Amino acid sequence: MRTALVVGTGLIGTSAALALAQRGVTVHLADHDPQQARTAAALGAGTDEAPEGPVDLAIVAAPPAHVAGVLADAMRRGVARGYLDVASVKGGPRRELEALGLDLAAYIGTHPMSGREKSGPLAATGDLFEGRPWVLTPTRDTDTEVLNLALELVSHCRAVPVVMDADAHDRAVALVSHMPHLVSSMVAARLEHAEETAVRLCGQGIRDVTRIAASDPGMWIDILSANPGPVADLLSDVAADLDDTVRALRALQSSDDDKRRAGSTGVEAMLRRGNAGQVRVPGKHGSAPRAYETVVVLIDDQPGQLARIFADAGQAGVNIEDVRIEHATGQQAGLVQLMVEPRAAAGLREALRERGWALRQ
Amino acid sequence: MRTALVVGTGLIGTSAALALAQRGVTVHLADHDPQQARTAAALGAGTDEAPEGPVDLAIVAAPPAHVAGVLADAMRRGVARGYLDVASVKGGPRRELEALGLDLAAYIGTHPMSGREKSGPLAATGDLFEGRPWVLTPTRDTDTEVLNLALELVSHCRAVPVVMDADAHDRAVALVSHMPHLVSSMVAARLEHAEETAVRLCGQGIRDVTRIAASDPGMWIDILSANPGPVADLLSDVAADLDDTVRALRALQSSDDDKRRAGSTGVEAMLRRGNAGQVRVPGKHGSAPRAYETVVVLIDDQPGQLARIFADAGQAGVNIEDVRIEHATGQQAGLVQLMVEPRAAAGLREALRERGWALRQ
Repeated sequence: MRTALVVGTGLIGTSAALALAQRGVTVHLADHDPQQARTAAALGAGTDEAPEGPVDLAIVAAPPAHVAGVLADAMRRGVARGYLDVASVKGGPRRELEALGLDLAAYIGTHPMSGREKSGPLAATGDLFEGRPWVLTPTRDTDTEVLNLALELVSHCRAVPVVMDADAHDRAVALVSHMPHLVSSMVAARLEHAEETAVRLCGQGIRDVTRIAASDPGMWIDILSANPGPVADLLSDVAADLDDTVRALRALQSSDDDKRRAGSTGVEAMLRRGNAGQVRVPGKHGSAPRAYETVVVLIDDQPGQLARIFADAGQAGVNIEDVRIEHATGQQAGLVQLMVEPRAAAGLREALRERGWALRQ
Repeated sequence: MRTALVVGTGLIGTSAALALAQRGVTVHLADHDPQQARTAAALGAGTDEAPEGPVDLAIVAAPPAHVAGVLADAMRRGVARGYLDVASVKGGPRRELEALGLDLAAYIGTHPMSGREKSGPLAATGDLFEGRPWVLTPTRDTDTEVLNLALELVSHCRAVPVVMDADAHDRAVALVSHMPHLVSSMVAARLEHAEETAVRLCGQGIRDVTRIAASDPGMWIDILSANPGPVADLLSDVAADLDDTVRALRALQSSDDDKRRAGSTGVEAMLRRGNAGQVRVPGKHGSAPRAYETVVVLIDDQPGQLARIFADAGQAGVNIEDVRIEHATGQQAGLVQLMVEPRAAAGLREALRERGWALRQ
């Protein structure tokens, strides 16, 4: 790939442009707001002048609702050899393009799974996609050359290519992202009018469950509007489990021993299915998070305490896989949970104790 | 308080005994399994010999189902001036004691909000409760002397006392702990039979939402069996929101513009209520987590990298409030999110850049 055109210079488009430009590709930048394209160009993402002839790859990074229209326009004008979009949903845009009667051999739908807490070109960075999955949805009609252009883009962005069917992709992101997002919002919503004394009892559990409920509703309306079917199907499945669980809990209130036993069995089945699903969530390096052992250290709230813990762990040759800091409300002391490979835990405990740290357990 | 009796030497009982013993209180230890009491004594939590006369405070730390029986027995034998339990639910035990016809002036129900990933005396530590809320549920009948004995225990354990009505407590823990736990299990359960390709797309969002679904079902059955009513009520409220949201998503699939607009409004209302609830979740020092600014640093997977980051932050005089490490599946590089006070963020960014770190944004 020598030349590319990025249409839509928000966070995703500008980040991809930066990665390509950094690897020597000539990148042209376009946006319905020319000022956005100028900003992206000023950041070093390419030029906001139009290409003189067709480029190798056109990357459409427009908002979901406009993707098909922008793609159709670009394809009719023949601005590139290959075309892709980066929208977070893949079935809809493809069907819209088919309905417009376009030849889709030169098109491939893609979705980089990057975090999107920020938006706009100023938040862009050439390493936004580094190490993240980037889904490609070729069909049997997709030109191999176009698939290879997409793979080259993914490689330049140092992302991990994952090939999937478009509809399977939409069901997958509904499962691992859209459904959990709405459920997190529903748990958080219960706190809206809760008494302050109750809210004071929040611990790390509810903090984790509700973290993503802080996201921007505008962006999520766009995402969910493009994928309502699969998300509704999954929420209906959750609703069925919820109804069963409410029934089981009501049975636990019964004075009848058999009913209470049945209630207990029902609740336990739900908890065990939760266990079975949770171990499948990949942690670092694709392993399950439970594969790590946790070493808990008590700290004061002084700058430098964490530095000393990590320096001491480093000197002991131990790699910290994950870390979590827990502070109680209103207190100046806290706990640091260090997650390490099980074979490294004993050595880390010994090293930290030797250096004077207070460990739990 | 000079003397105490701990009945039930599991994690909670032994940890409280350790804290009291460390502060000079003479602690007697009892358990229905004498070996457990001997183990606790060997750890320095007190003596497993019975007291010769009444002690100042009896702390009943038996499993929820046995709390009322053990308390009633202790009160009838007159083993102490004051009695408390530490069960995670408070309405039930009080009603059971009342039904047994006991005078409850000498009793106070309490609940230390400590983490309980481990169990048994060997996991106990004198600082288990440090900085954590410890709920006390006195009534107008509770002797002031007994309330003060409980406050002294909480103080010795360096926990933060919170006074609540027993039933309000049970509704509060249903809200901030029991309901979120079951909902987390339900989200995780959807992954049990998911395709491997879909599971590969999991990111930090679902990882956080499902983390607590990894907990031990046996322990959670005990907790939920003691508080089924308030949990069922809250899950029913969530079920109503879930049904509304499924309907809104189905409306988004409509070809009718008005229906789609109504669907969008419905989904947005849910997301905004989630925002409003999420900001109430206390972070460190009782502030909302969103009050922090995040600085994102790219790291390689080498021991010592985190130590260097924290050392560099410490040298710049910046206190890291929270930290999160994110790794992509199968990759050797990752991102470290450092949460700091907004006024410290610019200085931290500058300091880290000067020392050669790659920052996002």
